[in-house]
Amino acid sequence: MGGFLILNEYEQDTVGIVARLSECIASRGGNIHSVDVFVPDDKPVFYSRSEFTYNPMLWPRDVLRTDFLNLSQHFSAQRSTVRVPDLDPKYKISVLASKQDHCLFDLLYRWQEGRLPVDINCVISNHDRLKDNHVRRFLERHGIPYHYLPTSPGNKREQEILELVQGTDFVVLARYMQILSEGFLKAYGKDIINIHHGLLPSFKGGNPSRQAFNAGVKLIGATSHFVTPELDAGPIIEQMVERVSHRDTLQSFVVKSENLEKQCLAEAIKSYCELRVLPYELKKTVVF
Amino acid sequence: MGGFLILNEYEQDTVGIVARLSECIASRGGNIHSVDVFVPDDKPVFYSRSEFTYNPMLWPRDVLRTDFLNLSQHFSAQRSTVRVPDLDPKYKISVLASKQDHCLFDLLYRWQEGRLPVDINCVISNHDRLKDNHVRRFLERHGIPYHYLPTSPGNKREQEILELVQGTDFVVLARYMQILSEGFLKAYGKDIINIHHGLLPSFKGGNPSRQAFNAGVKLIGATSHFVTPELDAGPIIEQMVERVSHRDTLQSFVVKSENLEKQCLAEAIKSYCELRVLPYELKKTVVF
Amino acid sequence: MGGFLILNEYEQDTVGIVARLSECIASRGGNIHSVDVFVPDDKPVFYSRSEFTYNPMLWPRDVLRTDFLNLSQHFSAQRSTVRVPDLDPKYKISVLASKQDHCLFDLLYRWQEGRLPVDINCVISNHDRLKDNHVRRFLERHGIPYHYLPTSPGNKREQEILELVQGTDFVVLARYMQILSEGFLKAYGKDIINIHHGLLPSFKGGNPSRQAFNAGVKLIGATSHFVTPELDAGPIIEQMVERVSHRDTLQSFVVKSENLEKQCLAEAIKSYCELRVLPYELKKTVVF
Amino acid sequence: MGGFLILNEYEQDTVGIVARLSECIASRGGNIHSVDVFVPDDKPVFYSRSEFTYNPMLWPRDVLRTDFLNLSQHFSAQRSTVRVPDLDPKYKISVLASKQDHCLFDLLYRWQEGRLPVDINCVISNHDRLKDNHVRRFLERHGIPYHYLPTSPGNKREQEILELVQGTDFVVLARYMQILSEGFLKAYGKDIINIHHGLLPSFKGGNPSRQAFNAGVKLIGATSHFVTPELDAGPIIEQMVERVSHRDTLQSFVVKSENLEKQCLAEAIKSYCELRVLPYELKKTVVF
Repeated sequence: MGGFLILNEYEQDTVGIVARLSECIASRGGNIHSVDVFVPDDKPVFYSRSEFTYNPMLWPRDVLRTDFLNLSQHFSAQRSTVRVPDLDPKYKISVLASKQDHCLFDLLYRWQEGRLPVDINCVISNHDRLKDNHVRRFLERHGIPYHYLPTSPGNKREQEILELVQGTDFVVLARYMQILSEGFLKAYGKDIINIHHGLLPSFKGGNPSRQAFNAGVKLIGATSHFVTPELDAGPIIEQMVERVSHRDTLQSFVVKSENLEKQCLAEAIKSYCELRVLPYELKKTVVF
Repeated sequence: MGGFLILNEYEQDTVGIVARLSECIASRGGNIHSVDVFVPDDKPVFYSRSEFTYNPMLWPRDVLRTDFLNLSQHFSAQRSTVRVPDLDPKYKISVLASKQDHCLFDLLYRWQEGRLPVDINCVISNHDRLKDNHVRRFLERHGIPYHYLPTSPGNKREQEILELVQGTDFVVLARYMQILSEGFLKAYGKDIINIHHGLLPSFKGGNPSRQAFNAGVKLIGATSHFVTPELDAGPIIEQMVERVSHRDTLQSFVVKSENLEKQCLAEAIKSYCELRVLPYELKKTVVF
Repeated sequence: MGGFLILNEYEQDTVGIVARLSECIASRGGNIHSVDVFVPDDKPVFYSRSEFTYNPMLWPRDVLRTDFLNLSQHFSAQRSTVRVPDLDPKYKISVLASKQDHCLFDLLYRWQEGRLPVDINCVISNHDRLKDNHVRRFLERHGIPYHYLPTSPGNKREQEILELVQGTDFVVLARYMQILSEGFLKAYGKDIINIHHGLLPSFKGGNPSRQAFNAGVKLIGATSHFVTPELDAGPIIEQMVERVSHRDTLQSFVVKSENLEKQCLAEAIKSYCELRVLPYELKKTVVF
Repeated sequence: MGGFLILNEYEQDTVGIVARLSECIASRGGNIHSVDVFVPDDKPVFYSRSEFTYNPMLWPRDVLRTDFLNLSQHFSAQRSTVRVPDLDPKYKISVLASKQDHCLFDLLYRWQEGRLPVDINCVISNHDRLKDNHVRRFLERHGIPYHYLPTSPGNKREQEILELVQGTDFVVLARYMQILSEGFLKAYGKDIINIHHGLLPSFKGGNPSRQAFNAGVKLIGATSHFVTPELDAGPIIEQMVERVSHRDTLQSFVVKSENLEKQCLAEAIKSYCELRVLPYELKKTVVF
C-alpha cells in the first residue's frame, strides 16, 4: 500500500524534520521511497513531500493519520495532508465549463480511462451547448449530474454553484468563461484550478488566442493555475507551449491551443491529486 | 550555384507571379527547388521566397540581377532581394554588446566554425568587461576591431556608433543594454536584430529574468526580434523556451535563459541571411 | 477553392517543371501558394508538391484534371495526384485493429471532430474486445460497419479482409497485431500505413515496449510507416519520442507510448491526405 | 555547505534506511533537502541519493565520512559515496578524443566557464588534428597536458593510456573512435563515459549517422552511456533527439548530431559528478 504525505512548515528550525518523519514511518514498518524537501534560499519556510509504502495490517489508517497529525503539530506545520490512494476516497470534484467543451470532454475521457484519480460530483455549464451533444450523452451514461446555469450580467448564479460544489475537495474550471467573485472564492474556501489559454502572465483576460495572434508570437501556450481574486494571476501550476508560424491563422492558433489546454489541465489535476502541488508565496507553486 | 530570391508585393492581382518567376529562371536554364508564397487571408499582400540553382556561366550575376529587377518592377514589388551566397559578398554586420558576453562569444564561435554566413565589421561595447578576457583575445586573433564606448545618461554615443556601423547590412544587439533612440534607428535605416531574454510580450524592459522569477512561471524563454522605436515591441523572429521549477533560483533562471538566448539569436541571424525573414504588418514576421 | 498537386518525376532534365506548372495554373486564373521541390543530391529524381487556389467556375474540375494529366505526361512523371479537398470525395479508408483500441478510438474521435479528412469504410478487428465497449457504441452511432475476423495460425482471414478493403484509397493499421502477407500487399496494391510502438529501426517485431524497457533507454518512441513485405522496415513517415526514467515501469512505458502512437498515426494520416507524403528510395519518405 | 550522499544497497530489509540516514544528519545539525530512493518492483535492491546542508564547523569532514561509512556498513551497502563539493577535490578526469573535436572543445569551454565540476588531468588523442588548432591553443593556455598517441591495428596504445589515466576518478570518451579492450576496462577499474552519435540501441558501431540516414529516420539522436566490454551496449545515462527531414543530407545529419552529442555528454558528466547516476542491473541506470 502506498501513501503520500505533504507538509508545509513555517518553523525556523527545520533540523530533524526528515529524520522524525522517516523514523515515524520506519517504526511502523514502512518504507520511504522518496522525500522531497524545498527550502527557499531567502526564507525559513519548509515544504516536503514523502512517498512511502507500508502494510495496512500493521499500520491501520487511523493510526497513520494520528501519527502524522502528531508529527505535523510537533513541527507546527501550517498544512499537512496525507493520502493513501488505495484506501482513501478519491478526491471529489465539480467541473465548470462554458461553450468550449474540449477540456471538459478530455477530462471525462481520461477519468473513464482511469487516468484521473477523482470522482466527478457534477458538471456545471453556463452555456447550453452541452444540451444535446456527445458530452451530454457521456454524462448520462455515467450518471454524472449536469446543471445548466445560464449567467447574466446581473446574476452569475454563484449561490447555486456554491451549493452544488459543497462537499467537493476542489473545483476545476475547464474553460469556464465567467469570473468567480472574491465572495465566492472565500465562501468555497478550497482550491480552484483553472486553465487559461495563454502563456501567463502574457495575455490575461479575454481572448488570449487573439491577443497572441496579434502580437505575432512564434510560440503559443496554455497555463493551469490556482484561482485567486486577481484575474488570471494566481499561482501557476503548469505551462506548455507549441510552435506557430506566419501560416497559422487565428483558427489554427485556437486548435493548437486547445490541445495544450487539455494536457496542461489534466497534468495539473493529476499532480494535485498526488499531493505534488503546494502554493508558495503569493504567486508561486512548489510542484514536487 | 544556388540562390535565394525574396519578393514583397503589394499588388492586388497576384495571378502569375510564380509562373513569371519560374519561367524567368527556367529560361536561363535554372532549376527551382522551392517557392514559398504567403498571402494573408485578409489582405492583398504577397510575399514569396524562392530557392533555385543555376549555372553561373550561362546566367551571369549581373544579368540575373537585372532579370529579377525587371520582374520585381513588373509586379511593383515593394522590396526584392536576391542573393547568391557563393558569389555575393557576405552580409556585413556590427555586433553591440554590454557586460554579458555569452551571446557575443557564441556568435563569434559560430562565425569561426563557418556556421554564420556574415563578416563582422566590428564589435562595440559600452562595458569594459571585454578589456581583458577571452572574447578580446578572440577578436584580436581574428583581427576584428573592438570599440569600447561607455555610455552615460546624457551621452549614449549614438553618433559614434552610427559612424562605426555605416556600411553594414544589418546590426546585431547581442545583449546590448542600451535603448537606441528613434533618431538612431532612422539614421541607420537598416534592420537591427535584438535578443531579449524574456518571452515577449511578457517581461519587456529591464531584468526579464527577475520578472519571470517573481511571476512564478514554469517556462522561461528568449525572443529575437527586430528593433523598433517602441521598446521590445518589434516584430518577433524566433522564440524558444525551457522548463523551470520551484528549485530554480534567479541565478539558474539566468543560466538557462542565456543558453536560449544564444540559440535564438543565432537562428534569427542565420534565417535573416538566407532571406527567410520578412517583417509583416506592424508586429509580425513571415519566417519562411 | 484550394487544391494540392503532387508529382513524382524520373526525368533527368527538370528545367522548367515549376515554370510549366505555374504557367498552367496562372493561365487558368489560379494562384500558387507554395511549390515545394525536392531533388536528392545524388539522383536525377524530382518530387514536387504545389498548393494553389482557383475559381472552380473558371476552371472546371475535369479540365483541371486533364491539364495536370497533360503536364504529368509531358514530364513523364511516374506518379501524379491532384486533389481539391472541397470538391473531391474524401479518401476512403478501412481501419484494422486488435486488442488495444487506443489508436482506433483516437482516430474515430478525431474523425468525428472533423480533423481527419477521411471516410471510414469499415473497422476490422481480430479481437473481440470491441464487442461491447465504447468503441463499438461509437461505431454503431455513426453507422460504421464493424467486422470481427478472428485469426488463427493457419488462417489470417486475408481473403475476407481483402474483400472488405476493396475500394478504399488506403488502409490504416491501428495497432493490428497480425503480419499481412506479401500476397495480401500485392493484391491490395495501395498504401497501408502502420503505427509501430517503438522507435524504428530499434525494437522491430513483438513487444517493442518491453524491448525498450529492457534496453534501459531514456527516450521511448513511436513510428508511423508504410507497410512493406519486410516486417517493420517500410519507409518511415513520422516519429515521436517521450522521456522515460528509471522510475518508469513497463506499464508506464506502455501508457506513454500509447499517447505517442495516437499522435504519430494521426499526423501520418493527415499528411498523407494532404498529399505531403511520398515514398522515396526503398526506405525513405519525402514529407513536404 | 552542501553535500551529496549516494548509497547502493543489496539488503532485503530496507526498513529504516532513510530514518537512520536522516537521524544521523539531524544529530549533527544538518538539514536534508531531498532524499530520493529507488526500489525496483521486482528486486530487493535499494538505491538512494540524499542532498543535505550542514555547518562544517560542527561536523568536520572526516567525522562526516566516518558517520556515513558506519551507516553504509550497517546496511551492507555495496557502494557508498559522499561528496561535499565545496570541500572535496574536484573529480579528476582524462578526456580521449579522435579526429572530431566538437565534444572535446565543448567540454573544455564548459569547464572554463565553471559549469563542469571537474579537473582535467590530460587530453589524449589518436589523431593529430589537434596539433595546431584552437583546441590545442586552449589546452596550452590552460596548462592541460596533451598526448598524441596514434593507434595502429596492432597497437592501441592501451598501456600508455592506462598510465596517463591512472589517478583519475573517471574517463570521458569525447568521440574517441577506438574500442577499448576488456583488459583495459578491467585494469582501469573505474567508470568510463562514452558519447555515441546514435540513438542506441539503434545504430551501434561505426558511422551511426550514415546508418540513420540510410534508415530514413525522422529523428536522430545521441546517447551517453557507460562503457562495457560489449560495444555500445553499456548502461545508458542520457539520450537526446532532434528532428530531421528528407531535406537533411548526411552532412546536416552530422551537424545536428554533433550539437546533440555535446549536450548529451555534458549532461551525463554533470549528473555523474553530482552523484545522480548509478548503474542498475546490467543495462540500466538510475539517474536521480
